[in-house]
Amino acid sequence: MADLDGTTSSDLAALTARARQADAADPLAAVRDRFTLPDGLVYLDGNSLGALPTAVRPRIDALLDQEWGRGLISSWWDADWWRAPQRVGDLIAPLLGAAEGQVVVGDSTSVNVFRAVVSAWRLANADDPGRTEIVVDDTTFPTDGYLAASAARLLGASIRRRLLTESDAFDAHTAVVLANHVDYRTGRLWDLPEITARAHHAGARVVWDLSHSAGAMPIDLDRHGVDLAVGCGYKFLNGGPGAPAYLYVRSELQDRLEQPLPGWSSHAEPFAMEAEYRPASGIVRARGGTPEILSLLALEAALTVWEGVEITQVRAKSLALTDFFLDCVDALVEPGRFGCLTPRDDDRGSQVSLTASDAAELVPLLARHQVVGDHRPPDVLRFGFAPLYVGFAEVLRAAQVLAEVSRRPHH
Amino acid sequence: MADLDGTTSSDLAALTARARQADAADPLAAVRDRFTLPDGLVYLDGNSLGALPTAVRPRIDALLDQEWGRGLISSWWDADWWRAPQRVGDLIAPLLGAAEGQVVVGDSTSVNVFRAVVSAWRLANADDPGRTEIVVDDTTFPTDGYLAASAARLLGASIRRRLLTESDAFDAHTAVVLANHVDYRTGRLWDLPEITARAHHAGARVVWDLSHSAGAMPIDLDRHGVDLAVGCGYKFLNGGPGAPAYLYVRSELQDRLEQPLPGWSSHAEPFAMEAEYRPASGIVRARGGTPEILSLLALEAALTVWEGVEITQVRAKSLALTDFFLDCVDALVEPGRFGCLTPRDDDRGSQVSLTASDAAELVPLLARHQVVGDHRPPDVLRFGFAPLYVGFAEVLRAAQVLAEVSRRPHH
Repeated sequence: MADLDGTTSSDLAALTARARQADAADPLAAVRDRFTLPDGLVYLDGNSLGALPTAVRPRIDALLDQEWGRGLISSWWDADWWRAPQRVGDLIAPLLGAAEGQVVVGDSTSVNVFRAVVSAWRLANADDPGRTEIVVDDTTFPTDGYLAASAARLLGASIRRRLLTESDAFDAHTAVVLANHVDYRTGRLWDLPEITARAHHAGARVVWDLSHSAGAMPIDLDRHGVDLAVGCGYKFLNGGPGAPAYLYVRSELQDRLEQPLPGWSSHAEPFAMEAEYRPASGIVRARGGTPEILSLLALEAALTVWEGVEITQVRAKSLALTDFFLDCVDALVEPGRFGCLTPRDDDRGSQVSLTASDAAELVPLLARHQVVGDHRPPDVLRFGFAPLYVGFAEVLRAAQVLAEVSRRPHH
Repeated sequence: MADLDGTTSSDLAALTARARQADAADPLAAVRDRFTLPDGLVYLDGNSLGALPTAVRPRIDALLDQEWGRGLISSWWDADWWRAPQRVGDLIAPLLGAAEGQVVVGDSTSVNVFRAVVSAWRLANADDPGRTEIVVDDTTFPTDGYLAASAARLLGASIRRRLLTESDAFDAHTAVVLANHVDYRTGRLWDLPEITARAHHAGARVVWDLSHSAGAMPIDLDRHGVDLAVGCGYKFLNGGPGAPAYLYVRSELQDRLEQPLPGWSSHAEPFAMEAEYRPASGIVRARGGTPEILSLLALEAALTVWEGVEITQVRAKSLALTDFFLDCVDALVEPGRFGCLTPRDDDRGSQVSLTASDAAELVPLLARHQVVGDHRPPDVLRFGFAPLYVGFAEVLRAAQVLAEVSRRPHH
């Protein structure tokens, strides 16, 4: 029996059964208990701000009451705040496919994009002087483009915006390629190994922004020879609002790094207070000023949710969740009501981007029904599926609510 | 009757009486109750990491449990995280003598030194092209010098290190003057109005680093026509370890600002996600990427300790505390045991820097006796006096302990 919009109750029963089966078989189901989430909320915006890991609160309590409140200045050593940027970097490294000592945490993603692009430019031009161009992914997250343009102005470089999949995107003029791993808008996953190899073949250095992929899939930076990478701490890493970003610098490049935003904490002898800058060796050279410890240690505590989690399981669940969501939308929503920007093959991240002319109205309506996604102008509804805490029954519920609100006249 | 090292008990009695009288008359005495400090600790390192304001803990509890934990992404609006950089800036502004809308908070001091120096360079050269030099205070905090050198390399500028009090420190080649208000090492207070006026007379723009003065004395940025200023949130502003820094941009310069580290949050329409950068107007133009909200809102809560506090009272108490400490040291410590780098006139900040060849050994000995100062290589003992929570009896006790540990053979 079909209801008003053509969905049969047997469709719904089949989807419900599929959700129940998938949740029962989910090897990550118990990980959700490591998060504090409001009852009844279907939170599909973890690609924008990850949910609160329960471990954060006691860590911050101790930081405030014991370390800052009682230990005061001595906590830089006694609580080892000093090495937190490297320590938290080493916690993130496995999610990036990076061996120890190549990731440092601190400053915003924007600041680290600037740091990475300038550093990569200098590396490329040290090896082969006269490279004049920074090639920026034509679909880049806008801020990355702003920072690349700012770096280019200071370096005397030119910027070329290109689709990085095009065979002539890079050439002998290219010093740096700034690439996004997953398109924030469409959810498209770009081919990191292939683009990296072609950039290297052209003699360029490549900087990957992993903000929308890290924590949702294996990345294998070491294996693919990536030069530098940046990414944000508050999406699939769940570090909290504005959590600090991370910067990966391939180990063999570290002692050649000439970064534009050094600080006393990246100095070879930070407490010697020398007038001249002498960079530290290793990943410490990529540090900047004093790290924002509250935000940094919240991220550290948040990373405990990954204990025992295989990133391959996360990827498998991510694909299953997004597949299931698309299937539910197909079954429950009137055909043609939404476009879909997200590839249906495996070249997608952990989000689904639908389009509709009334996207701006639909997103708050969904929220009123306890389904949180977000709107990206002009016409995109984004749904992010964080495999550590989103389940299949929730996905079905989100699609049901989407079907309901998109059926109603809401003007 | 003199004891072994020549101190008379009447000296001590007089100092004790003076401390008691000063504490009883202290209009800021009750402000100490706004802090959580360990019992019995004499904390004289608030110029490095300010003490914990009691208001921070409940604010962070609400941020974690309610805003992040329950509100999730909606808290960017519902809890107004979005405008926090300007809102916290406006809380700091009165301490800097700045009218509203000229201070923004976010990123480290290092990042903001870079941002300010590049911006100032562009302003100076827009008005009078061909200025080639950045003049850096010869006594600068080292990191400021590293960032100025990095900016100079990118801008094609040259760096000159000068004592800014010298009459020929600036000339027609000077684009930017980077000055420290209080010397982190000696405690010397430089003449901000005079140096600013001379820099302007030479046609240069001036960037002040207020890290060691803000919160300890009136500053009057607006009155003295300062162009840009930066400073750190974790010293006399008590924002917690690595609290974000602030950036002041004089209002009439804001719409000409071309800063090198923009981000989506400094864009005229942040959520339009435009490929091209169009800067916001006003102080928002000085923002960068996503601010680290935990650290930023801890600073906001910390700033509640200033309610009803007159900064002129703070300065008066600061001078009285440092005067009293020097008098106590003179009376209690064997003559010649320590040198003193800090001026005895009013041209000092809120710290006293003593010198001794065994400074590195004395500082941990003091800490073992519950008196916390710090050591700056090779031979400086620094004592910071935060007028909001340090009292005169504590100052006497610190001097007594210093006298005791410096008398003992400790090798």
